[in-house]
Amino acid sequence: MTLILTFLGKGGTGRSTVAIAAAQKLSAVGKRVLLISQEAGPALSMLLGSEAGEAIGAKAAKVTLGSSSFQVVQLQTTVLLDENWEKLKSFEAQYLRDPFFKAVYGQELSVIPGMDDFLALNAIREYTESNQYDVIVHDGSGDQSSLRMWGAIGGIDWYFRRFKKVFQDSQFYRSISPFIGPITGAILSGGSSGDIWSRPETRSVESMVAKGKALVSDPMQLRAYVVTTADEVAIAQGKYLWSAAQQIGLSVTGAIVNSISPGQAETTGAFAPLPLTTLPYSVGGDRWQRLAQALPALTEPVSVPAAMSVDAANSTVKLFLPGFDKTQVKLTQYGPEVTVQAGDQRHNLSLPPALNGRSVTGAKFQDGYLIISFG
Amino acid sequence: MTLILTFLGKGGTGRSTVAIAAAQKLSAVGKRVLLISQEAGPALSMLLGSEAGEAIGAKAAKVTLGSSSFQVVQLQTTVLLDENWEKLKSFEAQYLRDPFFKAVYGQELSVIPGMDDFLALNAIREYTESNQYDVIVHDGSGDQSSLRMWGAIGGIDWYFRRFKKVFQDSQFYRSISPFIGPITGAILSGGSSGDIWSRPETRSVESMVAKGKALVSDPMQLRAYVVTTADEVAIAQGKYLWSAAQQIGLSVTGAIVNSISPGQAETTGAFAPLPLTTLPYSVGGDRWQRLAQALPALTEPVSVPAAMSVDAANSTVKLFLPGFDKTQVKLTQYGPEVTVQAGDQRHNLSLPPALNGRSVTGAKFQDGYLIISFG
Repeated sequence: MTLILTFLGKGGTGRSTVAIAAAQKLSAVGKRVLLISQEAGPALSMLLGSEAGEAIGAKAAKVTLGSSSFQVVQLQTTVLLDENWEKLKSFEAQYLRDPFFKAVYGQELSVIPGMDDFLALNAIREYTESNQYDVIVHDGSGDQSSLRMWGAIGGIDWYFRRFKKVFQDSQFYRSISPFIGPITGAILSGGSSGDIWSRPETRSVESMVAKGKALVSDPMQLRAYVVTTADEVAIAQGKYLWSAAQQIGLSVTGAIVNSISPGQAETTGAFAPLPLTTLPYSVGGDRWQRLAQALPALTEPVSVPAAMSVDAANSTVKLFLPGFDKTQVKLTQYGPEVTVQAGDQRHNLSLPPALNGRSVTGAKFQDGYLIISFG
Repeated sequence: MTLILTFLGKGGTGRSTVAIAAAQKLSAVGKRVLLISQEAGPALSMLLGSEAGEAIGAKAAKVTLGSSSFQVVQLQTTVLLDENWEKLKSFEAQYLRDPFFKAVYGQELSVIPGMDDFLALNAIREYTESNQYDVIVHDGSGDQSSLRMWGAIGGIDWYFRRFKKVFQDSQFYRSISPFIGPITGAILSGGSSGDIWSRPETRSVESMVAKGKALVSDPMQLRAYVVTTADEVAIAQGKYLWSAAQQIGLSVTGAIVNSISPGQAETTGAFAPLPLTTLPYSVGGDRWQRLAQALPALTEPVSVPAAMSVDAANSTVKLFLPGFDKTQVKLTQYGPEVTVQAGDQRHNLSLPPALNGRSVTGAKFQDGYLIISFG
């Protein structure tokens, strides 16, 4: 199984530096490592140094730092867009009588907001499923927008489920239902589609979504580290991102304090109970090795509080939201699901069958935990 | 007319600090200023200081720094989503016989990638059109994702135009066309819709898009400054973003070197011919005033090279792409439009009628300009 490591933190705290050092550390002990960068521009290449940096591109390439080697890829959205457009066209050609996407070339397509993250997420999925890597070190934007990406699987899944139900219940659906048969018959190759919700393609997407949701909440498949400096704004922003990550079910398993100038002040216990690692101020040729040595074990099982835990016997769900207080968290049950809103995010809880569909009867905040009771 | 200022640069170069100083500078000379922050978390509030910082929220609020006041809003995607969902529902209620979005509450909706930028762009449009502000100071992510946001209007416009044509030309359209009348008749209130492409709502969206596209390429309506430190990676990343902005038609009108530590090295001419301003290292109570004084005039007409200029007499188009060379720029004409690809972005050129639809006959790189000739 591949473990994905990702890093959260304010810009300028050295997340890319920590990511490179992590890749170096893990490849030095024999792990097959892929470093995936989502940042466009020359920064990663310059950080890796002239020799290693030259190989960097949209295809995974080997770089050697010190005595160990790993693969690096700098995702390019235009390249991913072209590849996925070709896949979509061949999918279309297979199912539609008269494909119409085929008239459009991938190379024409503009990149609009959201595409970067959806295409990156899909690329990470493909690299994970290739079984070529023990560890994927992900160097993304590290802020709220990274959390949107990791939350996207749950979010999209919610939209499909919710709107499928609304659609099927609507008079709109009843109005157009006489036409659905003839239309699908006219456009799908092989004629009428039967129930589109039970077709094999629908089922395969459903199983992909279920796997993706399980991945995000399993710290042996995906874990985040908060990177900060001793600067108080960086620490506060790191704490915010820690909570915001937990809120969407992504476990943060440690905090890393990067020394970006010599003689930096000590950082206090802002991230308790997370294990905290302080990296030495490090420049020069052997900096990667020194940073790698100072990093904690990154792939071992961890004993930090889970982002979410369910106690079916007592009909309660506990969410660990360390940086929020009760005024910042809103719990609603407008639709069929329980929604937790905090940190400008909404998370529709994936509940076990025993609690699914039941009403919330109470909620309290205690020692950083939001404890929700079901009736 | 409202002028929007935005800032590009590597994380940690102090873009938010520069944005606050810019808001202070302009409000001190009597401009009505709104500072719009897109960054979630406590950073902005802490930078503004305890007194001013407390007012910060999802609604524009007045803050006072030194002797001048301006408005500040920290955009919250969940709040914007709820507001826009309500608007969509009332729009739907007006046009559809049997609205079905009404069954879904805004407060249930998850935030998925792309929504942050689309909703922010719409909020900025509304603030601009309110005529309440002379200047909007925009503190966004400052990286490629900010450029995606500013490029979104042109991008979305392209998708609509391109796929409308593909759709209308397709056999798919002919297959379903017998059903379009009965379906629209069944779902639209007031019965059959006539030609949906010539309805007043379609026209109003078209005029909004035309206004938005004009705004992005007019430096008296929107301009970007590159913010950097003396660090070589920050400079290289700033140069990359400068070029990438120009490539989508957004003019960069100056470079600002922020001194984040005392005794910082001088920055050389990496950004020529842009005017370059170096800010003093500044801490303590009167820092905003000192930074504001050091900033250049931010709202005056500028004489930097335009991102794109058209010479209709000679049938050429010049794009100023200072940081790219010819190996990094790809020019294609797959579809009906000319696409410039560079810096992981694609820009479909908006050509004047005289050149529209004509074939590219040549292109050359000269002194940082890409010069395209049409036959």
